Amino acid sequence: MARFFMAGTNIKGGTAIIRGRDAEHVRVLRLRPGEDVVICDGEGTDYKCRLVYADKEQAEAEVLEVVPCPAEPTVKTTLLCGLPKGDRVDYIIQKGVEAGAYEILFFNCERCVARPENPEKKLERWQRIAEEAAKQSGRGIIPQVSWAGEFAQALDAAVKKDLGLFMYETGEREALNTVLEGNKTIATAAIITGPEGGFAEYEAKLAKVCGLHICSMGERILRCETAPIVALTALMYATGNLA
Amino acid sequence: MARFFMAGTNIKGGTAIIRGRDAEHVRVLRLRPGEDVVICDGEGTDYKCRLVYADKEQAEAEVLEVVPCPAEPTVKTTLLCGLPKGDRVDYIIQKGVEAGAYEILFFNCERCVARPENPEKKLERWQRIAEEAAKQSGRGIIPQVSWAGEFAQALDAAVKKDLGLFMYETGEREALNTVLEGNKTIATAAIITGPEGGFAEYEAKLAKVCGLHICSMGERILRCETAPIVALTALMYATGNLA
Repeated sequence: MARFFMAGTNIKGGTAIIRGRDAEHVRVLRLRPGEDVVICDGEGTDYKCRLVYADKEQAEAEVLEVVPCPAEPTVKTTLLCGLPKGDRVDYIIQKGVEAGAYEILFFNCERCVARPENPEKKLERWQRIAEEAAKQSGRGIIPQVSWAGEFAQALDAAVKKDLGLFMYETGEREALNTVLEGNKTIATAAIITGPEGGFAEYEAKLAKVCGLHICSMGERILRCETAPIVALTALMYATGNLA
Repeated sequence: MARFFMAGTNIKGGTAIIRGRDAEHVRVLRLRPGEDVVICDGEGTDYKCRLVYADKEQAEAEVLEVVPCPAEPTVKTTLLCGLPKGDRVDYIIQKGVEAGAYEILFFNCERCVARPENPEKKLERWQRIAEEAAKQSGRGIIPQVSWAGEFAQALDAAVKKDLGLFMYETGEREALNTVLEGNKTIATAAIITGPEGGFAEYEAKLAKVCGLHICSMGERILRCETAPIVALTALMYATGNLA
């Protein structure tokens, strides 16, 4: 069934007036009166509608059902990633959205090789990647991509969540599955992963002081763009959001 | 610690005679007598060695310990993927190896868009990607990349494993976590995923007749290059290989 995010639709009293980009979608997909379409409000709610009228400029549909988007995970997971180089950022955004991230933040830390003068400038492009991936994978929201700032700000964002996971490659760590098995009913989570060179020891220590779980994902060394996706998938699996 | 796959080393009676590409590694890394190095036989065994001698042509090391490579999962998982287009293949290989695949096979099926005349020709390049990823992630083997042939041959490869998972997007399916929770002690597994357009209905039916588990990974639609990595990660998590 055709599905798109609201961008020009007005829903009032059981009728959806479809204009702007949404009307364009209807036209491009050659949808005819009688056909069904799902309009998602981008905040987790799906409006299942049946077209009653469509012309070049606008369309009208009857709202059949209003439901929470079934693709939205029960846990809102924030990915916090030390900024990697080049297209690894794109990869983290695309796959992170597919795998169920609620939002994605990048930050600067000790071993970041990529140090954009003005990361905010890149946000528009990054957000477009998130939007594209959200549409393609049938998400109920468009996850926000943001610039968190420095390492301490990433920590600050993580400690506000029900569960904060800090992925680290050496030293004393908790096994990821042990941590997740004990936290199956959380509503929010943060996953922090490092850039190409990983984290400095003091950064891991600081994360621990802040109460984050310093986690191991086994003996295989994951690339900086793979680690957030693997950790997120494990979290989705453990919380019943991969079934 | 420096680590490489055996390619010119002879181990006899507690001494490793390092020649060829391995001796080159020692030279490039400027390893000196007294330094430790891990030489992996590519079949899951690590030789922890201490250099006793090194010149331009060869090096000699004392074998300190012979251990199973700790990065190797307890489950040998075969990824079987309907051949996708272009660099999606590269992606599946690189991330699949990082995430713990034992071997990766591609096959042709109803909705494959990519239909190489001679897929065997590509195997050399694919295998190099696997080797690179195996080295980078610290694997104990270099996963083999192969061409399985047609869909029926992929099914045939899957039914020989302790557990066969067939990822499918619609219809009656088992939840992936239910299946995995009931199969925590398997030694071998196969994960079958489709190409860009997914599987034809008859293919899914045939897979079911063959005794494979037709599995759902939730309501989010994963790209054909993302699905095998997410499924593999879930399997690694469920079998205790992500800790």
